[in-house]
Amino acid sequence: MPSFRSLDVELGERSYPIHIGPALLSRADLILPHLKTRRIAVVSNEVVAPLYLERLVGPLKAEGVSVLAQAILPDGEVFKDWQTLNLIFDAMLGARCDRSTTVIALGGGVVGDMAGFAAASYQRGVPFIQVPTTLLSQVDSSVGGKTGINHPLGKNMIGAFYQPQLVLADTDTLVTLPAEELSAGLAEVIKYGLIRDIPFLEWLEANMDSLLRRDGEALAHAIEVSCRNKADIVAEDETESGVRALLNLGHTFGHAIETGAGYGNWLHGHAVAVGTVMAADLSRRMGWLPEGDVARVRTLLSRAGLPIEGPALGVDRYLELMSLDKKVSAGKLRLVLLKALGEACITGEAPPAMIRAAIEACGGGN
Amino acid sequence: MPSFRSLDVELGERSYPIHIGPALLSRADLILPHLKTRRIAVVSNEVVAPLYLERLVGPLKAEGVSVLAQAILPDGEVFKDWQTLNLIFDAMLGARCDRSTTVIALGGGVVGDMAGFAAASYQRGVPFIQVPTTLLSQVDSSVGGKTGINHPLGKNMIGAFYQPQLVLADTDTLVTLPAEELSAGLAEVIKYGLIRDIPFLEWLEANMDSLLRRDGEALAHAIEVSCRNKADIVAEDETESGVRALLNLGHTFGHAIETGAGYGNWLHGHAVAVGTVMAADLSRRMGWLPEGDVARVRTLLSRAGLPIEGPALGVDRYLELMSLDKKVSAGKLRLVLLKALGEACITGEAPPAMIRAAIEACGGGN
Repeated sequence: MPSFRSLDVELGERSYPIHIGPALLSRADLILPHLKTRRIAVVSNEVVAPLYLERLVGPLKAEGVSVLAQAILPDGEVFKDWQTLNLIFDAMLGARCDRSTTVIALGGGVVGDMAGFAAASYQRGVPFIQVPTTLLSQVDSSVGGKTGINHPLGKNMIGAFYQPQLVLADTDTLVTLPAEELSAGLAEVIKYGLIRDIPFLEWLEANMDSLLRRDGEALAHAIEVSCRNKADIVAEDETESGVRALLNLGHTFGHAIETGAGYGNWLHGHAVAVGTVMAADLSRRMGWLPEGDVARVRTLLSRAGLPIEGPALGVDRYLELMSLDKKVSAGKLRLVLLKALGEACITGEAPPAMIRAAIEACGGGN
Repeated sequence: MPSFRSLDVELGERSYPIHIGPALLSRADLILPHLKTRRIAVVSNEVVAPLYLERLVGPLKAEGVSVLAQAILPDGEVFKDWQTLNLIFDAMLGARCDRSTTVIALGGGVVGDMAGFAAASYQRGVPFIQVPTTLLSQVDSSVGGKTGINHPLGKNMIGAFYQPQLVLADTDTLVTLPAEELSAGLAEVIKYGLIRDIPFLEWLEANMDSLLRRDGEALAHAIEVSCRNKADIVAEDETESGVRALLNLGHTFGHAIETGAGYGNWLHGHAVAVGTVMAADLSRRMGWLPEGDVARVRTLLSRAGLPIEGPALGVDRYLELMSLDKKVSAGKLRLVLLKALGEACITGEAPPAMIRAAIEACGGGN
């Protein structure tokens, strides 16, 4: 069997392993030790299930595991709502899944977030395993325990912090990933370099072409380093009271783009890429980042196939949407900016006029 | 100011105090130290809000606390659903409540369960304070952190374990409580005596008339002893993996009655009373409880104004509904029974024929 990489997310009694590599989907031997009983409920979507569901459940069934319930959700961020979440509850209750049934999420970030929130809430919590099938979900949502759904008034507003028992990131699933989704994942990968890992940023600049060619070894390295960076931060701050907020570089601007353009019209990673440029531009205006570093950020994101200009929603609309962000504390807008490349910080001190100018400079005006 | 009783629920960093006594609603001084910021969202219902909302928020406003959002829910178990829960999210998001906003629940168990789940889920968790206004919620749902909503296929199927910062049980609110709701609360009070506290069971037999007269001191004592018993158990077993299941005496039968009769047609406490008689009767059939002890259970519940015969749903329907209960483990029905008065146990060994006979004997046949 091909070899794979592993790391542990250290969270005391909620610690769990992440395995990264090729052909992991069908490794029932890696899943079985983490099942409480040989009963599972699988959550996937209409695009991923035809490609990979059988590859996952076939070997499990051969080992005597019962697939009690199967919820195949419609695909896309627009369906990350209560009605769709309820399809999971309906399937599990209809099959009389009990508290020892493990929920397995097979799909991208939307499937993982919804299956995770369903697992957190079903009978007040059942075990959960993540099998992320997009680069974005492999590097981002598979570490950190954030689960949830959207509300018409804001993204990810209803949810829970809930840790999986295990994450299996099979790099073979990235072969079928549409190019724009590979790029969306790379936005988050680049983020780890920018906020805390200069050697990784340089590695990305040197290996971007291999990543775009979907070289398995390059992808596995990028996923592993990204997960390690995120795991380090999450281990320090499980419920986002401090340092974890640094992971939100580009996200406050990005969420405004996603909400303002309508859920599903901008990919999360694309919105984050533009948000990262806005944050870099604002960091330059704060006197922290030299002009050349901002250009370096733009260049790397562009090479990864990402947009660097936002939709022209108008600056006021951006600010209105940003004020709804969860990172607002006691009414004050707090942003993640860059003191330098590889060194992020959180500040509530950016002058409103500078924030407006940065949004404007990156295409957000009208 | 009148004096009050206090106890602490010991859960490590999630420990919190319960204050019990008269005139606590207006004690802003007891609430203020537990607010993260002076911003709150209040959840109540159409019956309780006109009686007590101003008494609670008036003194808080006088201390500079902003009531950002107010969700006044329709009254009753039938509204313990997602649509009604969403009224809380709508109000909080509309008012841009952030992660430091404290949710205060003012009302009975339904309000507490829904406000608690809203607090657990809103932006993945905000602080929460319980102000229970029924005897049932003061002795039961205010301790233990169980929150949630119903699903058409089962009661309390969607929820979270989530602890409040503080519980204020104001015994004055029991004066306006309908007689049948006082009785419903007494069903849970009696339960603590039956499962682990013989002196308290004897105290209840001696003081039932004072409780029914709503004597403040008697009520405060009953609430305090009930909460202490529950707090002891919960401290031992926060997420219901072991001893905590003993609290469910009468609940597996009781949930079947509530669901079978249609949510809202049987009060929870009334269903639990009948379930307790069924459990006692089954314990006798198991050879554990003498006939006289079963009679003693029936007599005390009757004196408390509680029903001791269930609806004639038919034994098969009871068993079908019971198999949906969360206490089912790996497909096996586990029941809380009495080895003796004051000594509950969990068993998966009750023969089906005996279970059927106990349901039949307590009015459940057809």
